[in-house]
Formats: sequence, C-alpha cells, structure tokens
Amino acid sequence: MNSRRKFLQKVTFSAAAIPFLSSFKPLTLQQIDDTPYDGPILRVAIMGLGGYGNIVANAMQSSKKAKLVGLISGTPSKQKEWQAKFDIPEKNCYNYENFDTIKDNPDIDAVYVITPNSLHHDHAIRAAKAGKHVICEKPMALNAKEGQEMIDECKKANVKLLVGYRLHFEPNTLEIIEKRDAGEFGKVLFFQGLSGFRIGDPKQWRLNKELAGGGAMMDIGIYSINGARYMVGEEPIWVTAQETKTDPVKFKEGVDETITFQLGFPSGVIASCLSTYAMNHLDRFLLNGSNGFAELHPATGYGPIKGKTNKGELSHPHVTHQTVQMDEMAGIILEGKEPVVPVDGEEGLKDLKIIDAIYKAVKSGKKESLKL
Amino acid sequence: MNSRRKFLQKVTFSAAAIPFLSSFKPLTLQQIDDTPYDGPILRVAIMGLGGYGNIVANAMQSSKKAKLVGLISGTPSKQKEWQAKFDIPEKNCYNYENFDTIKDNPDIDAVYVITPNSLHHDHAIRAAKAGKHVICEKPMALNAKEGQEMIDECKKANVKLLVGYRLHFEPNTLEIIEKRDAGEFGKVLFFQGLSGFRIGDPKQWRLNKELAGGGAMMDIGIYSINGARYMVGEEPIWVTAQETKTDPVKFKEGVDETITFQLGFPSGVIASCLSTYAMNHLDRFLLNGSNGFAELHPATGYGPIKGKTNKGELSHPHVTHQTVQMDEMAGIILEGKEPVVPVDGEEGLKDLKIIDAIYKAVKSGKKESLKL
Repeated sequence: MNSRRKFLQKVTFSAAAIPFLSSFKPLTLQQIDDTPYDGPILRVAIMGLGGYGNIVANAMQSSKKAKLVGLISGTPSKQKEWQAKFDIPEKNCYNYENFDTIKDNPDIDAVYVITPNSLHHDHAIRAAKAGKHVICEKPMALNAKEGQEMIDECKKANVKLLVGYRLHFEPNTLEIIEKRDAGEFGKVLFFQGLSGFRIGDPKQWRLNKELAGGGAMMDIGIYSINGARYMVGEEPIWVTAQETKTDPVKFKEGVDETITFQLGFPSGVIASCLSTYAMNHLDRFLLNGSNGFAELHPATGYGPIKGKTNKGELSHPHVTHQTVQMDEMAGIILEGKEPVVPVDGEEGLKDLKIIDAIYKAVKSGKKESLKL
Repeated sequence: MNSRRKFLQKVTFSAAAIPFLSSFKPLTLQQIDDTPYDGPILRVAIMGLGGYGNIVANAMQSSKKAKLVGLISGTPSKQKEWQAKFDIPEKNCYNYENFDTIKDNPDIDAVYVITPNSLHHDHAIRAAKAGKHVICEKPMALNAKEGQEMIDECKKANVKLLVGYRLHFEPNTLEIIEKRDAGEFGKVLFFQGLSGFRIGDPKQWRLNKELAGGGAMMDIGIYSINGARYMVGEEPIWVTAQETKTDPVKFKEGVDETITFQLGFPSGVIASCLSTYAMNHLDRFLLNGSNGFAELHPATGYGPIKGKTNKGELSHPHVTHQTVQMDEMAGIILEGKEPVVPVDGEEGLKDLKIIDAIYKAVKSGKKESLKL
C-alpha cells in the first residue's frame, strides 16, 4: 500500500505536513498520519440511511480505525443500494423489526444512530440493550429526560455512548481552544454564535414537530449552544431567549424558526446566539477576550472551517470531519482515548438541558437558571 | 482657489469620482463636490473643548458650509489655545457664566454641545433660549424625559435641534440602506451590532455616573441601538437585556460594563447587540435577510468604515465623518434639507427611550415594551 499517496489523497494530518501548517500540534489527531495502521478496528452499523447517514458512510471509507460493516433501515430498496455500494454482507443488514437480534452478531461493535431526532432515544436504548456501543447523532434526544435515560441504559448495558460532535475534533477549533487555554485572548468575555440556514422542503422531517421535537434549535441552533460551551470553556448558569416567527405556515406550532438566546457563565462571560431556519450567510463564531479574539467562519459546516485570531488566519488543511470523527471515536471506544472536548452522553445531555431551558425561557420571558 | 486640488486633498465625493467607486450615488452627499461654494454658511460655536470637540473643530476646517466661529469653555487657558489655533475672535468666546449673552451675538448661528452627557440637557436648553440652533452630541441626554424637554424647548425657541449622528451621512452605511430598500437582501430578518472598546483611565468622566449617566451603553452601546434602527429600517417594539460586570472596581454602581440586549421589530426582525467597555476588536454590524447580507466592520469608528454584502466589498473612499456631518447639518439647518436617516431631536429621543428600556429590562429580567 502506498500509504503516502493515500495520505495525500485524504489531505489529513501527518507529522510530515505539520511544519507547513502552523506551530499547533493537534493533540487528538496524532493517529491520523500516514503510517500504516494495524490496530483494532471499530466495526460500525449505520441506522438510518438518509442524507447524513450517507455522508458518514462515505467518510468512513477513508477511516483507518472505523469500518462500515452493517446497515439498519426500514426501506429494503435503499438497503440493497447501500449494500452494493459499501459491500455490506446480507447477514449484517437489519430492519426495525428484527434489529434487536443484532445482539447475536459478533461482527458489529457499534451502532451509529442517524434517524430523526424523536427516534434517537428508543433506537439508542435498543442498540445498548443489544450490547452494542452507541454513537448517536445530535441532538442526542428530544429533551434532558430522554438523554438521561439513554445514559443510564448505556451504563447498565456496559456500552459506550457517544454523540456525533464532529467539531470536537476539528483542527481550527482545537487550535483556538488551545490558544484560549494558553491565555492568548486574555480573559474571555464574550462569545457570539450565529447558526442557521434557510430550510427548503416544508415536508421534510426536520419541520415535523413529532419527528424533530422542535425546529431550528434542535438541528442547527445546537451548534451555537455546544460551540458556546467549548469556545468559552465553561458551563453556563443561566439562559434568556427570544423567539420570532415570520413564516407561521412553514414553521408550525412547536417548530421554532428563529430564536436568539443568551447564556451567562460563572466568570461573567455572556454568549449571544442566533438559531434560525430562515437565513443563510451565518455560521459564525466569535470569541472575544480582554487581549484578543478568535473567529470561526464558517464555524460548523461540513466544508472547510476557517479560523482567524487577532494575530491572523489559521491554516489547517480541510479534513473530512466525519472521517476524523470516526477515527477518533474508534480510539475512544476501543482504546479509551480521552478527547480534548468530550463527546460522551453527558456532553450531549448538557446541550439538551440548555435546549429545555431555552424553550422554557422563550415561554416565560425570563432568565432561566441552568444546572449542568 | 484651486478647488480641484482642494477636493482631492479632502478625498470627498465628487461627480467625477463616482464612476471609479460603485454605481451608488449617495443622495445626501451631492453638495460635497469640487465646485466652489458660495451659498450660506452655518457659523458654529463649540461648547466643550475636550477630545471630541477637538476632532469636530479640526474636521470643520475642511467644511464648505459650516465654519467654527465661537467657543464656550470653562477653562480660559484652553480657550486661548483654541482661539489662536482656529482664529476665533475674542467677542465670540464665552464661559459657562456669561454664555447666555450669546443671544446678543449675531455672528453665531448654532451651538454644538460637546460636554459630558449629564450637561447636554441644560446646555442645549440654554443655547435654544439664546435663540441659537443646537447640535448636541450623542447621547442627546441622560434619559427620554430630558430628551423630550430639550425638543420642547427648542420648538418653543423656534430653533433646530440636531444630534451628532455622523454615521447617518456615511456612504457605506447609506449604500446598504439603499440596497436594503431596493430589496437586495430580501426580507430583512436579523441585525447584529457589537459595539465596544476597552476603556482606559478609570478617572475619566465616562466612568462617572454623575457625568455620564451610565456606562458603556450611553457612550458606545448607543451605536448598536441607533445602528439597529437605521440598518433594519423599522422601530423596535420590545427589548430584553442582560448585564454582566467583570470589574466592579472600575465599573461602579450605575456604570454598566457589558450589556447584551435584543430588540424586537414589528416585522419579526430581531436585533442582537452587545455594548461593552471591556473588549476591543468589536465594532461590527451584520444585517441578514432572506436573500443576502450586509456587513459593516468597522461599522462606527472614526476611521474608514468598511462595507460588504453577499455580492462583495463596497468601495467608498474615506471621508472625515465630522466634515461631512457638518456640511450636511448646515444644509439641514440653513436650507431645510432632509437627510435619508433623520438626525433631529426626535431621532435622538428614540435612542434614549430604548436606553431607558434596556436599563429597565436589565433590572426586571423581562421583555420591556417600547413605544417610539
């Protein structure tokens, strides 16, 4: 195997490439280099063969440590297509009726739940009960109560529960976190997160309260919530929120279109955020301190993330986020690696507690306190 | 007079220069061209010879339609210095004791009040009662009650009352307003204003509640308030606000360090803003609509304003804001010109009503309604 060429095709990190980038050495990406890998492989089944499942499946083809080996779907024709495309044996394919028998399949280690939000809770718990590690897309569940149940069930089943926070492995993001911890921005004082896009097809599940559990906040606003936490490096203690809806036909009762929210942190940092399904041209993070600032723009999209500080632009080559995520998650599950920013169930639960409080604050019009 | 050279030195707008800039023709800047001016001149006395008074005085040297002719100061030595520098006759110089006799001076048309905030109300009313037009720095006063009294007294005295909103004449700002009105950004949905700087000397009047009437909000937060209104093009109907103070020694009781606030507009637009005396690297406006966006960054500083939309960067040469402001204000006072964005007392009063409501919302923790 020409591992060097493979490296270049993947445009991932390598020890050789780092000198050309910046002085930052991404702590969590050490393993993504061009040396052949002969360690343990995480064998993953994807549950839910939709658009994002497809992105993850494709990205996993370039992963060294995680391999797509199984499929769970309610649509036989789609499953056939994926089987052919990803070379998945029939014995590793399940539907939602026979899925629980996956417990008898020794060739699958983990299930990646990429179904609509309202199904995460049940699907994750079924996977755990079948003895499989669980990776669950964000939002981890519809609310904190569900999230806590998932954590409890995974513990009981002695399996790991991870949430698909791909940006916790993103090099621009990690460099900013490292600089923040080194005091380069001085005392952190303010975070701004603008997350949103103009959503299309009004019939998609993301606009169905039953399936999505809410609107933009569940899907895209959560990036600003999670981002506020990892960028500030503290846990918020209160939240205020304001909702506006300019298109009540498209965004029905319980499906939020646009919410601005603010998070207060113990040190006095305030985060000011926007979550919306009504606008493009967002995806901006700004962290401001007494001595400097950091910007990410785009901050969370799948394409290249662009980072900048008061000292200039950061320069990391684009890596397919989901490839890095799957490599890193394999390391966490199989080797007990500790990521810089957690991706476990407790991490997902904190975001759900904040979402619960945001929806509460929208209704109460008051500052709601948070206990994470 | 080589008016052409004078024009180039001033780097202001001219019919000849416009083709090199953009297709936008600034409506309010027509008179700032290179043709000799022989119309009426607004003869101005500056009250308050501090740092900003000095900026205005210097800028007025390049104004065609406004001329610095008088001084009002409590510091004789400073007044002497200014008299020499700006060639001001003794008969046009006043102190705060004899100032009211300015009513008998036919050589002064207007008084530009550039004293600390808490003095604006009394100083403006005294100038009005002396029969002089009033230009007052922002914030116009400490609160809406004072602002209303100033408006009433100026009306009674039959003099004009203008507020020093220099950005209402700034070409990048005006181009964005024109594009917004032409629908280029689609339906306007969101405005973000980040206004602040890290304030130095803790003994300055801006940090003295008695003189400043508050903290960052009165001085710099007002830019985001006013900016939200002219960028969105509507008047807000509610406000929420959150305060944080990381340095209670420097920022005493009643002197706000950092406040985030949100404004709701009738159409559903939300503005999310930051006002702070604790951070640099701000001064950013973002207007986001369903089809595009506009950014100003810097948005309000004295130096070049930089504008950008989803279609690219705007390109206007820098003009000294205060020079343009004084030319335009002379046009308003002497010729009844109508600016695109008002700069009258009613405009200033609206900002004061919002400031009152922000301070109220900080205390109540609730959404406060606004009636502008």
